[in-house]
Order: sequence, then structure tokens, then C-alpha cells
Amino acid sequence: METQYQQNKSRLDLFRQKVYIIIYGVNTPAGKAFDIGLLVVILLSVFTIMLETVEGIDLIFHKELMLLEWIFMVLFGLEYALRIFVSRKPVKYIFSFYGIIDLLSILPMFVSIFISGSHIFGSLRILRLLRLFRVLKLMEFMQESSKLKVALMASRAKVLVFLYTVMVISVLIGTLMYYIEGPENGFTSIPKSVFYTIVTLTTVGYGDIVPATPVGQFLSMALMVTGYGIIAVPTGIVGVEIARQFSKAATGNDQNIRPSQQDSLNGVVCAHCNREGHRNDAEYCYHCGHSLHI
Amino acid sequence: METQYQQNKSRLDLFRQKVYIIIYGVNTPAGKAFDIGLLVVILLSVFTIMLETVEGIDLIFHKELMLLEWIFMVLFGLEYALRIFVSRKPVKYIFSFYGIIDLLSILPMFVSIFISGSHIFGSLRILRLLRLFRVLKLMEFMQESSKLKVALMASRAKVLVFLYTVMVISVLIGTLMYYIEGPENGFTSIPKSVFYTIVTLTTVGYGDIVPATPVGQFLSMALMVTGYGIIAVPTGIVGVEIARQFSKAATGNDQNIRPSQQDSLNGVVCAHCNREGHRNDAEYCYHCGHSLHI
Amino acid sequence: METQYQQNKSRLDLFRQKVYIIIYGVNTPAGKAFDIGLLVVILLSVFTIMLETVEGIDLIFHKELMLLEWIFMVLFGLEYALRIFVSRKPVKYIFSFYGIIDLLSILPMFVSIFISGSHIFGSLRILRLLRLFRVLKLMEFMQESSKLKVALMASRAKVLVFLYTVMVISVLIGTLMYYIEGPENGFTSIPKSVFYTIVTLTTVGYGDIVPATPVGQFLSMALMVTGYGIIAVPTGIVGVEIARQFSKAATGNDQNIRPSQQDSLNGVVCAHCNREGHRNDAEYCYHCGHSLHI
Amino acid sequence: METQYQQNKSRLDLFRQKVYIIIYGVNTPAGKAFDIGLLVVILLSVFTIMLETVEGIDLIFHKELMLLEWIFMVLFGLEYALRIFVSRKPVKYIFSFYGIIDLLSILPMFVSIFISGSHIFGSLRILRLLRLFRVLKLMEFMQESSKLKVALMASRAKVLVFLYTVMVISVLIGTLMYYIEGPENGFTSIPKSVFYTIVTLTTVGYGDIVPATPVGQFLSMALMVTGYGIIAVPTGIVGVEIARQFSKAATGNDQNIRPSQQDSLNGVVCAHCNREGHRNDAEYCYHCGHSLHI
Repeated sequence: METQYQQNKSRLDLFRQKVYIIIYGVNTPAGKAFDIGLLVVILLSVFTIMLETVEGIDLIFHKELMLLEWIFMVLFGLEYALRIFVSRKPVKYIFSFYGIIDLLSILPMFVSIFISGSHIFGSLRILRLLRLFRVLKLMEFMQESSKLKVALMASRAKVLVFLYTVMVISVLIGTLMYYIEGPENGFTSIPKSVFYTIVTLTTVGYGDIVPATPVGQFLSMALMVTGYGIIAVPTGIVGVEIARQFSKAATGNDQNIRPSQQDSLNGVVCAHCNREGHRNDAEYCYHCGHSLHI
Repeated sequence: METQYQQNKSRLDLFRQKVYIIIYGVNTPAGKAFDIGLLVVILLSVFTIMLETVEGIDLIFHKELMLLEWIFMVLFGLEYALRIFVSRKPVKYIFSFYGIIDLLSILPMFVSIFISGSHIFGSLRILRLLRLFRVLKLMEFMQESSKLKVALMASRAKVLVFLYTVMVISVLIGTLMYYIEGPENGFTSIPKSVFYTIVTLTTVGYGDIVPATPVGQFLSMALMVTGYGIIAVPTGIVGVEIARQFSKAATGNDQNIRPSQQDSLNGVVCAHCNREGHRNDAEYCYHCGHSLHI
Repeated sequence: METQYQQNKSRLDLFRQKVYIIIYGVNTPAGKAFDIGLLVVILLSVFTIMLETVEGIDLIFHKELMLLEWIFMVLFGLEYALRIFVSRKPVKYIFSFYGIIDLLSILPMFVSIFISGSHIFGSLRILRLLRLFRVLKLMEFMQESSKLKVALMASRAKVLVFLYTVMVISVLIGTLMYYIEGPENGFTSIPKSVFYTIVTLTTVGYGDIVPATPVGQFLSMALMVTGYGIIAVPTGIVGVEIARQFSKAATGNDQNIRPSQQDSLNGVVCAHCNREGHRNDAEYCYHCGHSLHI
Repeated sequence: METQYQQNKSRLDLFRQKVYIIIYGVNTPAGKAFDIGLLVVILLSVFTIMLETVEGIDLIFHKELMLLEWIFMVLFGLEYALRIFVSRKPVKYIFSFYGIIDLLSILPMFVSIFISGSHIFGSLRILRLLRLFRVLKLMEFMQESSKLKVALMASRAKVLVFLYTVMVISVLIGTLMYYIEGPENGFTSIPKSVFYTIVTLTTVGYGDIVPATPVGQFLSMALMVTGYGIIAVPTGIVGVEIARQFSKAATGNDQNIRPSQQDSLNGVVCAHCNREGHRNDAEYCYHCGHSLHI
């Protein structure tokens, strides 16, 4: 019956549906090919923008780069038009997050055709980089990616508390460094001293400012060793979360990390008191003592 | 009866009690709002002090920054007065750690009204940064924070032993570097060489001093790779401790990390079949179904 | 019978077989000695090439280094000839990965005897470094090495997803830094800004370019702290995998990390009591004592 | 009988024994006090040597520092004499590792009394730093320290394999960088390029040499991200080992990490086939099917 309904549809609708599956679908071969193609074009387009800012390259290959820009614009414009055309709710797409990004990434080029203010157009072209978010979105379909995301989300609160503490300590020690070293040694203001402190604590170590007084050097050494020691904290937090996510994935349960949750997964709910969270090898309910095998 | 006693209290006492709950309480909406407001004001006040040291900003916005300083001082002064007023043991608060910090953070501004030695006042104003400790204290009410603290405390001894070993090795290798490189290559003294060694071992790497002799470069490379390798030690220590803290939180016990210890804590051994390993809240044996409370 | 066949073999064949065991074998004392000797000669040869590029050393010891070069070439040439001579399928060896590397590492020296274009010969001699791959291959026989390799392979997909996300974020923030700081502060192009971003995010921190504007410094600080925080992600991923590999090695199975998967692999479910979770080498059910092989 | 024998001993012997317990003992209060006192004196002595190399301090406080030197020398000399005096096997102590270090740390000062070649004496005085090894030895009595040592020892082989691979890769990429960047960009020789590679891979990042060509910059970025990614490997290795050491300590067994070993601890050995490594809740031998409860 549904097939009959399909056959009655106009040819345009059929084409629209086919394109829809290609553009929005992720499981069909055509949908995957489109996604990978889009990903490649976005990355190439970003690479082109990057090259344009390299003076030597822009001088020699200016025309070629411009040509590429227009090719990418046409491709993105075509994609934008198709997305609106095949979408069942075009307005919703247009005002969605990705709809606005897609528009913003082609608008500056189109506007530059009619208005010859190439200066504004130049600095707005960079909006195309926002399309990289679409690349990140495409990655979400990978299972690994979503699990990492869950792990990071789960450890977010702990990591934030840690980073906040790091910030407060950095301000305190940065101020101290400002009064110890002073502007004559490069610590010209407290914000700059805090910058130095964070550069040191995170073991980045630019070396643009370096303590010159013995006290400042001693404090810096303490800071480095501290930074070296407390890098373990976010590692520990995220590591535990990742272990939980991926061991859950590997076994269909997460017995070794969170026993109770895993038990409920294999359906062990006491028929008498509806309790969950029994041991895997439990034969009787831990709460009411009824057999779990009835 | 207690309610009656409350009604008999004077209006002032009622007000005092209300303010007490706001200032010292953490569970009521008003208490939480006060804490967050205080946190914001402290951070803004710290930010103001930081901006004052930036020469460009201080020249243009000197008056505005001064005005902000006085607003913060009035707010902190008001808070200090209220804390003394509502506290049941005002003297105890005044001489407590946070009482002294609160006083120190407003004193320099008040003194500067009467004594026109703005120079001393300027460098003492920085004492207000001590209020950041209150920010850290506010964070302690967050559950995540206290668990991280416990994890860090538990691994303290091990991390200290590790850091002490790192220090001793740094002094030995730093001295070696001093004799290998010598003052002509920037290693002007042993303390500076030790500074270089710690900068390298912790992978900070300022680059203000760099080994110039082949032997020095070889030793430095060994040092870097060592630092890279032993960063694992604090990570391992703290990671294990964090895993223990948070898996304990997730399951209501810490079965998966220290099974036997947790079991022995509530002594749950089935009287009928001698099984161990019951849930903390188990009332019946998971194996034979006998009550655990006989 | 086989022994008789051996005795009938010619002396040359016996010699060939002996050499074959020495060169290709890894379990006999002679084979091990050959492997270690080869490893030492390769490392010495690499060290010689490195020294030749140090101007001071090359000027003084040019003749000695040249002599060493010829000694290594004769040794490698001898090894190459022997490998072809004793191999049962010489052609297969010659066109194998290591066969080509072995040839490439001696060819430039031999060619330089007949053709006196020492310039080309000089820069091709470096091909001998490819022999370091043989060193890595020798290491594969160590059990530790292969387990680490398995752990890295298993976590490859996750680490790649992570690194890809890091790359996308680096391009976005690098471009932002280019527009914030501009060419006047050293951020001369987007690729260079992305270079700066990755240098900062990975906590390398060369310090050749450093942000000069307050906004750029603030963004950089956020970047450092982020890099400090997310270094935990690959650590967590690989750590979990290593824990799995080496605990599997310690117990003969990987029961504690992935119990059900390991069990399901050999399909061991007791036919009598339907229990799962038997040891890999179990022959009887741990619960009811029935044989698992019926 | 033994007590009687003690009473018959001369007063000197009694004194000798008392001093022996103080110097060599670690469990008595006096022994502990001596150890801590020795530790403090060694650290102060090292600190004095360090200060002497700081030009500004040495010029002003030369006499005071010299005085301190002589005090430390007398103390160390006294300690050395006492150790020989009370030791039951003085010759064994004198030629032991610590005996030679103790002698070397005082010899240069004593020699300088008789021979007025203060130049030689100056550079040999540094031998006193060897006494820091005694500090490390004192730390070994701490339980934490010995467990960390065991964990590091257990993961030694794996970490070495990892570091060796890092080294080989560094030489390969370092050579590549030398040919890509060349001497004009600071990569003056292969050893220096390898130095740069290791500085980058370990995220130290001095910034004394920085790639200038696009290809070199791209390779460096790959190197940084690789370094960032593979720092996880030693962390994973050591982390697993530390988790094993300290969970073993906490529970008296290491059930969750190495099940089979823990099972043998609680005595589960099959009476029929002597197999170990049964599940904790096993009732029948996995190998021969006999009941484990007989």
C-alpha cells in the first residue's frame, strides 16, 4: 500500500526524496559518500583560506586561489540550495544552527559579486571556517566519538572544579610574582604575571618572561613541580570516566566499575519487591530474600 | 515550645537570625544567592586590582577604577560589620582565619582615608586577594570538590615522596650540568643550573638557557625523556586514588577497588552459607536467601 | 629418516643451513648474538652518519669517519650477500621491504666507487638510516613490545578521533588568533597561527611567537588550560587499553576487564546449570562441577 | 645467659653498641633523630655548596660560607670516624658504596689543610653531593617509597621498550628535519636536529631552534601531537603497576587486578589436582571437576 502511494508521487517528489536520503542520510552508501565528499571539500576550502594568508603563496598563486574560492562557493551554494529544496521544513533548516552557518559561509562571496568592497568581503570570507563545525558533526556518527563525548561530559563537573581551583591559585601566585619580580624583570602588570604563572603551571613555558630574582626562581620551580604533579588530577578524572565508558561498551555491561547498573541490564529484577542491582551470580534477592529464579 | 520561644524573641533578634541564615547558610535559596553574589564581588574586586597594574588602562580609567575600589570596600565593610553583628560568638569570628582575612582586605582602604600615605596603601590593597581563599571555601560545599580533596589528601604522602626524589635528582644533575656547561653557556651558578634542570625535567622548557656542549645536550635529552617517562608516577598515584573515591560514590561502596575492606567494614558474612560480598544495603544473602540480620 | 637425509646433503648445504639459522633464527644463542651484533653495528653506523654532519668533528676526524663508513659498508654488504646466499627464496628476500632497505643502505657507497660524484653519494648515504627499521623489527621479538603494540593498535581509532578533534579546534582557534593578534605581533599567516595554537595546546611552548594583545593572551591562557585538561583523554584511552593487555598477560585471560566477552569467545556456558564466566582453560563448571565439554 | 655475657662486656663495648644503634638503627627514637639530623646537615651542606657558586653571594659572605664548610667537614669527619669505630666489620664499611662516598665527601677538605692547592680542592668539594644518595637511602625506609620503587621496577622493561622506540623514531625524524630545514634555519647538524626532535616530542619546547619552512613546521606539528598522544603510554604502564601495588597493600590481596594470585592467597587449591586460580565463588575445580569444599 505504501509502495502504491510512492508510485503515485510525482517524479519531482521522487527526486527530492532521493536527494534527501543522500544529503541527510548517513547509513546508505550514497549518504556516506556525500558526507565524506562534503568533509573533503570543507577541509580543502579551509586549507585554501589558510594559504591565502601566506604572503609568498598569495603573490604567486593569487589567481588560482581565487578560482578555487569560486569553485568552493558554487559547491557550497549548490549544497545550500539543495538542502532547502529537499527539506520537508525548509524554514526550520534555514534558521537552524547549521542552516545559518551554511548561509554565512557563502554569503560574503555572493555579496562581493554585486558590491565591489573586496576589503570587507576578504575578512568575512573567514566565516566559512564555521563549516568545520559540520565536520565535527559528521564525526559524531562514529561510535568512538560519541563515547568520548559522554566520558568528557560525565567528568565535566569535576574537571571544572579542578580548573577553577587552578585559576584561583594562578591569580594568587601571579600577583605574588608581580610583587617579587616587578616590572624591571618583565612582569609589567598582574595580568601579565598571571599569564606567566599559567604558562609555567601548565608546563607550556614560552620563555618570553623568565624570573630573574632568586625568590622568583624558587617560587617558579615550586610552581613547575606543582604543575607537574597536579596534571595527574584531570588525567585521573577523565581516565576513570573513559575506562567506565569503554568497558561498558566492550562487555555490554560495566560490571567491574559500576556493578549495580550492570545487573539491571541483564534483567535481574526481583519479582517480589522489584529491586534491581543484584549480583550477577545472586540466586536470592538481597532485599526481601525471595528467589530470583522464579 | 521552641516555636513559642522564637516568637518571644525581639524583632532585632529575628532580623539577626534571618541575616545569619543568609550569610552563614548554604542550603537556603537566600544563602546560596548571597554566596554567589559574594563570589562575584570578590572576583570583580580582584579583577579591578589586576587592571590597575596595567599601565595603559590605569592612565585612562584611573578615576573609574578608584570608584570601583571604594564600592567594593563599602560592600566588604558592610559584610564584615554584618558578620560580626549576627554572629553568636563575634570575638571568635574576628580572630578566626577568615575573620582576619576579611579585616585585612578592607583595612588598607579605611586607613588611607585618615592617613594620606597612598604609597603604603597601594601595596597593601593587594591583601584583598586573600579573599580568594573564601572563594575556595565556597567551592568546598560542592560535592565534587570535597571528593577531589580527599583523593589528593590520600595520595599526598606518595606524591611528596616522589617530588622529593625528583628534587634530589634535580640537584645532582643540575650540579653536573653546571660543571659540564659552565658560566660561559649561561649556567652561571648551581642554583641556576638546578633551575634549568627542573625547567627541563617538568617539560616546561623556557629556553632562556640551553645547553651548548654535546655532553650537556646529551644529558639534557636523557633528562627530557626521563621527565616524559616519570610524569606517569604522580598520574598513576592520583589516578588510582580518584578512581577509588568516585567509584565509591557511584556504587555506594567501593567494592570494585577494595572489596574485602568494604565487606569487613559492615561485617556482612552470611550466617548460613558464610558467603561474603553482599551489598551494603543487603538484608538477605544473595546466595542462600537467608536473612543477614540474624 | 630425516637425519639420514641431512647427512646426505652436501657440505655447502650444511653451511648454508647453519648460516640461515644464525641470520634468520632468533631462539638459538648464535642467532641472538647475530641479532645483537647487527643492532650494535646499525646503531654505530647511524651514529657515524650523525657525527659527519657536525662540522667541528668532520673537519678533524674526516679520514677516520670515512674509514668507519667503509667498514660498515663491507659488513652490510657481506650481510646482504649472505642473506641472498642462504635464503631458500632469494628473489622474495631481494624484493621484500627489508631486502630493499638492505640494498638501499649499501648501494650509494658501492656506486661511489665507480662514479666519482661524491656529492650525490653524500646525501644518499643517509638511506642507511632506514636500517633503523630493522632495529625496530628486532625489538618485536620482545614480548613487552608486542603487547604495547597491540594496546596502541586497539586504542588507535579512539586516539585518532581525539586527535582529529584537536586539529579542527586548532584550526578554528588559530584563525581566531590570526585576526586578534595580526601580522604585527608575529602571527603573519593562518598556518603560522595554527602552528602557534598547536605549540600551545600540546604544552610545547617554543616562545618564538607570543600573544601581545590582552584578548590574545586571554585566549592563549584558555588554550593552555584546555590543553592541560584534555591531555587526559589520550592518557585515559591508552591507559585502559594497556591495563587490559597486561592484566590479560598476568592472569592468562582478561577476566577482570572484559569478563563476558572473553567468556563468550569460547562459548563456555555450562550445559547443566547455564553458568557463564568460566576460565578459558576450564574443563569443569565452577558451580555444579559438570564437564564443560559435553 | 646472653644478658650475662653483655654485662661482662667492657664499658667501651657498651658505648660502642649504643652508638651503633643510634647510627645504624632506624626504629629507635635516637636512631630516627640521628637520621633526620644527618639528612638536615647533608641538605644544608649541599645548599652551602650551591650558594658558593652564586657570584654575588660568594663575594659578600665568602668567610661565613667557608666557616660553614669547615663545620660540615668536622661533622662528617666525626660521623665517618664513629661509623668505623662502632662497626663490627670496619673494613667492610670502608670499602662499601656508602663508605667510599662518606670518605670522598670529606677527603678534599682534609687534603686542602696540608696541600695549599685550593684550586683542585674547590672542584673536588662537589663530591659531597654524592651524600645525597644517603638521603635517598634514608627515604627507602618509608613504606610509600619502597612501593613506588617496586611499581617502577615492575614497569621498567615496558617503559624501556617504549623509550627505545621513541629514541629510534627521534633519530629518523631528526635526520629528516636536518634535510628539510638545513643549517640556514639553525638545524646545523643531525645531532642538533635530533636534540630539537626530542625537545619537541617530549613537549619541552625550548624554542632556541624553530622550524622555518612550511614542510618542517608541518612535520613539527605532527611531532607535537604525536608526543601529546603517546605520553599516554608510560602513564598507562606505570599507572597500572601503581594501581596493582597500592591496591594489593590496601586489601591484603589484589583481587581486581590479578585474580588468580589472590585466590591462592585464600587457600583455594584443588585437593585433587592441586590447581590454583579458581573463581572466588567456585564450588568445583575448573580443571578436574572435584568439589573444592572437601
